[in-house]
Amino acid sequence: MSTLPVTDLSRLCIHTITTKPWGIEEAAKKYAAGGVKGITVWRDALSGRNIKQTGEMLRQQGLEVVSLCRGGFFPNKEPDKRQAALDDNRRAIEEAFELGTGLIVLVCGADPTQSLEDSRKQIRDGIATILPEAKDAGVKLAIEPLHPMYADTRSAINTIAQANDMTEAFNSPWVGVAVDVYHLWWDPNLEKEIKRCGNNNSLLAFHICDWKSPTLDFLNDRGLMGEGCIPIRKIRSWVEAAGFKGFIEVEIFSTEYWKQDQSVFLKNIITAYKEYA
Amino acid sequence: MSTLPVTDLSRLCIHTITTKPWGIEEAAKKYAAGGVKGITVWRDALSGRNIKQTGEMLRQQGLEVVSLCRGGFFPNKEPDKRQAALDDNRRAIEEAFELGTGLIVLVCGADPTQSLEDSRKQIRDGIATILPEAKDAGVKLAIEPLHPMYADTRSAINTIAQANDMTEAFNSPWVGVAVDVYHLWWDPNLEKEIKRCGNNNSLLAFHICDWKSPTLDFLNDRGLMGEGCIPIRKIRSWVEAAGFKGFIEVEIFSTEYWKQDQSVFLKNIITAYKEYA
Repeated sequence: MSTLPVTDLSRLCIHTITTKPWGIEEAAKKYAAGGVKGITVWRDALSGRNIKQTGEMLRQQGLEVVSLCRGGFFPNKEPDKRQAALDDNRRAIEEAFELGTGLIVLVCGADPTQSLEDSRKQIRDGIATILPEAKDAGVKLAIEPLHPMYADTRSAINTIAQANDMTEAFNSPWVGVAVDVYHLWWDPNLEKEIKRCGNNNSLLAFHICDWKSPTLDFLNDRGLMGEGCIPIRKIRSWVEAAGFKGFIEVEIFSTEYWKQDQSVFLKNIITAYKEYA
Repeated sequence: MSTLPVTDLSRLCIHTITTKPWGIEEAAKKYAAGGVKGITVWRDALSGRNIKQTGEMLRQQGLEVVSLCRGGFFPNKEPDKRQAALDDNRRAIEEAFELGTGLIVLVCGADPTQSLEDSRKQIRDGIATILPEAKDAGVKLAIEPLHPMYADTRSAINTIAQANDMTEAFNSPWVGVAVDVYHLWWDPNLEKEIKRCGNNNSLLAFHICDWKSPTLDFLNDRGLMGEGCIPIRKIRSWVEAAGFKGFIEVEIFSTEYWKQDQSVFLKNIITAYKEYA
């Protein structure tokens, strides 16, 4: 493993949800002041804002808008709820366009009252339906495989192999894969499947955080890089060997860190990024 | 899917931990009175007992001792702790022999301070070390792949494909696989890999429970069959198509159910077994 530590912050992106207590205006100022160069915007952070002006504000702070989180949640046993999901994904595409980002991350969804196979079919159908609109808006769709512990309600796509299979089936430059170490670190096929992403030119995003032992909450107990057992730098080396040159995105949901002074937390993110990313 | 419901209790086994508040003597009487035919014994249930006599007591109640839970936990960065794990597995083999069961379930272990690859190597080495002793005692070892959410501290074997790979590498009738629906239900390769188990004659155990939405605790919030989203009967049909004719083992860890009157819980287990297994 010859991957070197990152030497500067030129590829550091932070997700707005990572510093959830901050509004997006404050987050942008603080990220920029700290030397962060990219921001991924969660849709709740846009609530009540003019989206176009918010995008301009972010760029004025020197931040690249790396992606919009999140679209998806296609599956539902009830057709009207599937239709509502499609409408919501169309709004996400509009929001991404107005914000000025070329990427939406898809948390694909799952409905525990139907089979995973049915949910997967509805995911395929959902992406196929919105794909022409995404293309028209110049927005790529990144399928994010989610950890199997979320297979009941959040995603029926639980391995990078499944995301690669689906991406290959679409065979479109507008559909690819988001690699999040939290969801995928345990997978014995991870290196091989990241290579396959690279061969497909479909690796669209790279998210990092860490897995703490013990983890106390299914959703909101992610760790800062270095606090857990994920071999983040090793996985980054695979991602870069696959040709990925994009941002390294820090996405941490943590009730514990959200309670902290967010300026202190941001400093700790930057330190951990340099040491462990 | 033409699998029929189970029509009687002749294949129903319950794990002692499922009714943890009961001592093994009470559990045995209540299981037998309820028509249950098999028991899997957790080692804590043997604490302070004469193991040989306990095995005889179980058989006198008409119960087959299906397996002993659990061996494993081989990996550790520190050699003396790996040695202690081997010693503990040797004790488990002796206990299984005295209890009169021919099967130990292995929760293989993982150490978050080292790589999964190192942990997997230590698992292979550990099984190889104890295998001659298991064979001498007439005790098979079932590798139980654990859900990826346990990859940090409980098992570096997280898919049935990995368990099959390892079983094939040993190529011994004394090493096989335990299929637990809770750990494996999300896996898109599950049917294929259960078939592979069948082709290897290595499917040694079948555990059931359900995955609740939401699940509130990483360890102790498993559901009763029918309460969650696991397609238990479909998975049973795959297991039986692979030639498995053994017990269907109810293994539920649940703080909620352990608080209930265990006689009521046992009735509910039997009802849920008939309806959903």
